[in-house]
Amino acid sequence: MITRRNLFTTGGAALLGAALLQRSSLAAAPDLAADPGPKTTPPPTDGVAFRPVVTLNGWSAPWRTKEGWKEFHLVAEPVVRELAPGMKANLWGYNGASPGPTIEAVEGEKVRIFVTNRLPEHTTVHWHGMLVPSGMDGVGGLSQPQIPPGKTFAYEFALKKSGTFMYHPHADEMVQMAMGLMGLFIVHPRESNQHRVDRDFAFLINAFDIDPGSHTPKVATMNDFNLWSWNSRVFPGIDPLPVRKGDRVRIRMGNLSMTNHPIHLHGYDFRVTGTDGGWVAPAAQWPEVTVDVPVGAMRAIEFAADEPGDWAFHCHKSHHTMNAMGHNVPTMIGVDPKDIAKRVVTLIPDYMAMGSRGMADMGEMEMPLPPNTLPMMTGRGPFGALEMGGMFTVVKVREGLARGDYRDPGWYDHPNGTVAYEVKA
Amino acid sequence: MITRRNLFTTGGAALLGAALLQRSSLAAAPDLAADPGPKTTPPPTDGVAFRPVVTLNGWSAPWRTKEGWKEFHLVAEPVVRELAPGMKANLWGYNGASPGPTIEAVEGEKVRIFVTNRLPEHTTVHWHGMLVPSGMDGVGGLSQPQIPPGKTFAYEFALKKSGTFMYHPHADEMVQMAMGLMGLFIVHPRESNQHRVDRDFAFLINAFDIDPGSHTPKVATMNDFNLWSWNSRVFPGIDPLPVRKGDRVRIRMGNLSMTNHPIHLHGYDFRVTGTDGGWVAPAAQWPEVTVDVPVGAMRAIEFAADEPGDWAFHCHKSHHTMNAMGHNVPTMIGVDPKDIAKRVVTLIPDYMAMGSRGMADMGEMEMPLPPNTLPMMTGRGPFGALEMGGMFTVVKVREGLARGDYRDPGWYDHPNGTVAYEVKA
Amino acid sequence: MITRRNLFTTGGAALLGAALLQRSSLAAAPDLAADPGPKTTPPPTDGVAFRPVVTLNGWSAPWRTKEGWKEFHLVAEPVVRELAPGMKANLWGYNGASPGPTIEAVEGEKVRIFVTNRLPEHTTVHWHGMLVPSGMDGVGGLSQPQIPPGKTFAYEFALKKSGTFMYHPHADEMVQMAMGLMGLFIVHPRESNQHRVDRDFAFLINAFDIDPGSHTPKVATMNDFNLWSWNSRVFPGIDPLPVRKGDRVRIRMGNLSMTNHPIHLHGYDFRVTGTDGGWVAPAAQWPEVTVDVPVGAMRAIEFAADEPGDWAFHCHKSHHTMNAMGHNVPTMIGVDPKDIAKRVVTLIPDYMAMGSRGMADMGEMEMPLPPNTLPMMTGRGPFGALEMGGMFTVVKVREGLARGDYRDPGWYDHPNGTVAYEVKA
Repeated sequence: MITRRNLFTTGGAALLGAALLQRSSLAAAPDLAADPGPKTTPPPTDGVAFRPVVTLNGWSAPWRTKEGWKEFHLVAEPVVRELAPGMKANLWGYNGASPGPTIEAVEGEKVRIFVTNRLPEHTTVHWHGMLVPSGMDGVGGLSQPQIPPGKTFAYEFALKKSGTFMYHPHADEMVQMAMGLMGLFIVHPRESNQHRVDRDFAFLINAFDIDPGSHTPKVATMNDFNLWSWNSRVFPGIDPLPVRKGDRVRIRMGNLSMTNHPIHLHGYDFRVTGTDGGWVAPAAQWPEVTVDVPVGAMRAIEFAADEPGDWAFHCHKSHHTMNAMGHNVPTMIGVDPKDIAKRVVTLIPDYMAMGSRGMADMGEMEMPLPPNTLPMMTGRGPFGALEMGGMFTVVKVREGLARGDYRDPGWYDHPNGTVAYEVKA
Repeated sequence: MITRRNLFTTGGAALLGAALLQRSSLAAAPDLAADPGPKTTPPPTDGVAFRPVVTLNGWSAPWRTKEGWKEFHLVAEPVVRELAPGMKANLWGYNGASPGPTIEAVEGEKVRIFVTNRLPEHTTVHWHGMLVPSGMDGVGGLSQPQIPPGKTFAYEFALKKSGTFMYHPHADEMVQMAMGLMGLFIVHPRESNQHRVDRDFAFLINAFDIDPGSHTPKVATMNDFNLWSWNSRVFPGIDPLPVRKGDRVRIRMGNLSMTNHPIHLHGYDFRVTGTDGGWVAPAAQWPEVTVDVPVGAMRAIEFAADEPGDWAFHCHKSHHTMNAMGHNVPTMIGVDPKDIAKRVVTLIPDYMAMGSRGMADMGEMEMPLPPNTLPMMTGRGPFGALEMGGMFTVVKVREGLARGDYRDPGWYDHPNGTVAYEVKA
Repeated sequence: MITRRNLFTTGGAALLGAALLQRSSLAAAPDLAADPGPKTTPPPTDGVAFRPVVTLNGWSAPWRTKEGWKEFHLVAEPVVRELAPGMKANLWGYNGASPGPTIEAVEGEKVRIFVTNRLPEHTTVHWHGMLVPSGMDGVGGLSQPQIPPGKTFAYEFALKKSGTFMYHPHADEMVQMAMGLMGLFIVHPRESNQHRVDRDFAFLINAFDIDPGSHTPKVATMNDFNLWSWNSRVFPGIDPLPVRKGDRVRIRMGNLSMTNHPIHLHGYDFRVTGTDGGWVAPAAQWPEVTVDVPVGAMRAIEFAADEPGDWAFHCHKSHHTMNAMGHNVPTMIGVDPKDIAKRVVTLIPDYMAMGSRGMADMGEMEMPLPPNTLPMMTGRGPFGALEMGGMFTVVKVREGLARGDYRDPGWYDHPNGTVAYEVKA
């Protein structure tokens, strides 16, 4: 966790202190947000002039208002992120976490965003999808000089339109994004009843390539990532989305990985109501159950949650609902493993013949794993192992939730309970 | 082929018989469909209350009606599927084939679907795109317990809306879908004139990774599949789509592979009129000649077949119109193969210098292949080798076809005949 | 460069000459276009009955009119293309370059296109997206016999509708497209004010796999290309798009690579106004900042250039904005390179420890490269290295440009100049 105080006392302070002496203008930056950890932080219920979003396994940045400007402070820095209980990764993030805090503001407001670079190399911030002056666009070398380590750059612009945008570096871009540097930027409509929903979730889609047993992503991977994440979390580390029956629900998803992700919702069809370019007119919308979110794009979907239940919500590329180790597993289907096992076990004591009947055993079994590695399929539901990892969670539609209640309702009132199914011989 | 009778006499019968004794309720399940083989089975012309689809290289499931419920029976089991003449694969399917039979019913009907598991591991069935109660959604561990080998589970739900849906396991999902477990579920509109077309084709897009010379797919492949298939068939094993000139044509394509497929039709532009989420309003449709079908999604396209001819219809990723062996071929373009060949042939007697002028020779030449392997480019048209494999077939628009005639019209009345082209020196 | 004259005197002339003797009909073909090199050739300002497009780093084909037919001549042949200053590739193209010249004509016109094959293997031309008779569709073996080396085939058809189309071989397709054989075909509306814009750019998206130090693409690559190009050029070899402030701008992009490309424009949101299937009705358009162009598809985007500046325009898959060498780079982040370097340097004298602080150093530093290889990140802007390669360029929106002025306006009037940013300590 990072607070304003330890910014001045920890590792990077020497460099930064020196820089401060040069112009002493960082004193003008607002306090840093404290990273509250990887659990979803419910939004404030009052004191803001807009209907806030819920950042899945994340939180929103605080701000201060100064002479008509809304001021935020982002600190780019190395962070440790828990991807799921049992695995932590060395990433780069903002304000103590990857992704950084969600920035929320209102159409028409003027924002000033201080960006302090505590990374070992230069960086910038590009405001993806936003209409800003060319000098504020954040492309290192093109629209501004790079921000060197230890320095702070102030971005200033007015918010021309509402929508769901993203922020990320435009400097050594492949590396810095492969390390997790990114965040969401939500601009709410001036009229708070415009585009109004009851539940409004948001997250970024990203991916990492971390060898089992190690902690740092490989930064030159192009296709073969092995940890497919939402807000730098993988199932079972991704929180559920609790929804009250009858709510109108929006889920905003921005894709900053290297491939498109077809996100599938069970139980409902929905409409895409917004992109990172703006709101989609109702007449142009299509009914969908899977939205293919392109790289470098955002899709907001909406539906009326009228059917109670526990609804799977996941990427439909099935290897994206696996954790690491989904690779290089030989097909054993139809092979009797006993003979092989007998011979191999003399060489490799931990050897475990698996997969001759499929891989479902892996969802339940205990298998020796390297340290800091997640099982490839894990997570439990009310009826046993879910055999999922990666980009998977559950939308829980419940009668009993109060408006604004974002706690996990658990399974106690599981609508499937004991009656809806039967196993016949 | 599987019939009700051999279900009780072949391999899995002991287990299943034992289970039957427990509750003797499988007797309630309707007869199994007999897999008619990999040729396209034309739909019945009468006796059904809807306008049936034609499943490309597939067939539709029979049903029986019982006390207001339409009952189907799916048996998940190991199958052998001919991918194209000359190559068979060990897959998992339903009722003797991969994909399983297309389920067809009408909006508003109530269906009961018995699913018997004859696989070596547990399974479930998820009804992709359909609005069902949470307990019928088929996510193993979340909405129901897994169906163990030898057991039968009965799914029951009402059909809330018409459209094109899919069924597949939501248990050990990556493996079971890589083995070919999947099928189509068509719900016809209550009003048979709604969304009416003259020809209505349907197929699933899938892919396998089978090493040349072997029979069983590798189940942990993420990107590098080598057999790109429609309904588990590859060209030249995919049937043509015969269409009468003037017909209104619909083609429904559901993608259960691991990457999106840009399906391209020659000779026409078309509209996407439906997704697995429902029907697309005309005002929201775009004119297209290539529809990019995302993973875990369905696209139905429609066009008026007013131009006669033989129109190629294929995935536009060119390695998806190749069969296995499209990999690891060194570039020989511009290299004189003679010297290399002389030296290599002393080491490898079968060696054949190829590719120094491109690869077109491969479409025609005889090359020694491992057993149970297809040539990478094959299939012949009226003017010679087509140099295609994988996801390729031909829409044949003919004057002479009768309404409802789905036989391959062959080439005898090829509209290009001898006049439309000329080779000039 | 190819002109009509050297067609008869250079290498392929013997074969071609012999063929000409057979029927002496090639004399009927119009003169070949001279390839003007890889710089963008501005369109003619008069003498044409349409508002021409600007082909990025390309040019348009000349034609002649003969008895009511507009005649073009394409010669498929090996070419050398400069991908960017410092690297040339052995490709296959038309009329001296890859891509071939853009064909431009007007809705309702009749065209005759002579295709002469000077490749070492047979070929055909398919007119992607166009409504042509079946015998003119260019699928080798299906709609016509292959065109053998040395022969010429004449395609004839009327232009049924306006739009943006593509031409490419449908013969040994994977190889011939991996070698760069392709071009654009623009059909302008009959009414020149229909779909009218002030600036109209067009290019093809393609990709090559050329090992560092070599010149010829590997033709069996499926996913792991290492040179991501627009019109067979990579940044910094791609020209900027100069635009006058206030202009209505269209950019037409056709994708003939093997994966979809999410093309992102900074500073603006835009609408997709056309596909290779036709024009998209305004009510069906979505606001976007990133358009995901599927394989085998075209997207035309439009926006009003009301905000001056230098706006990055690039594929958002970050490894597509890198040149070769983006692979197999080990992650050194957090590793102190000094000790490793000391030991390695005794073995490999050229060894250079890099990446322990990210890869941004590579944008600036001098590193020994194999001959005929581009740095992976390069190109300079007004504020230093851009750290980009591949599919990247800049839309330059300027007050000072004249209508129809397509010269690079340079950086002299950079709107960011010295005032819009400040680096604070």
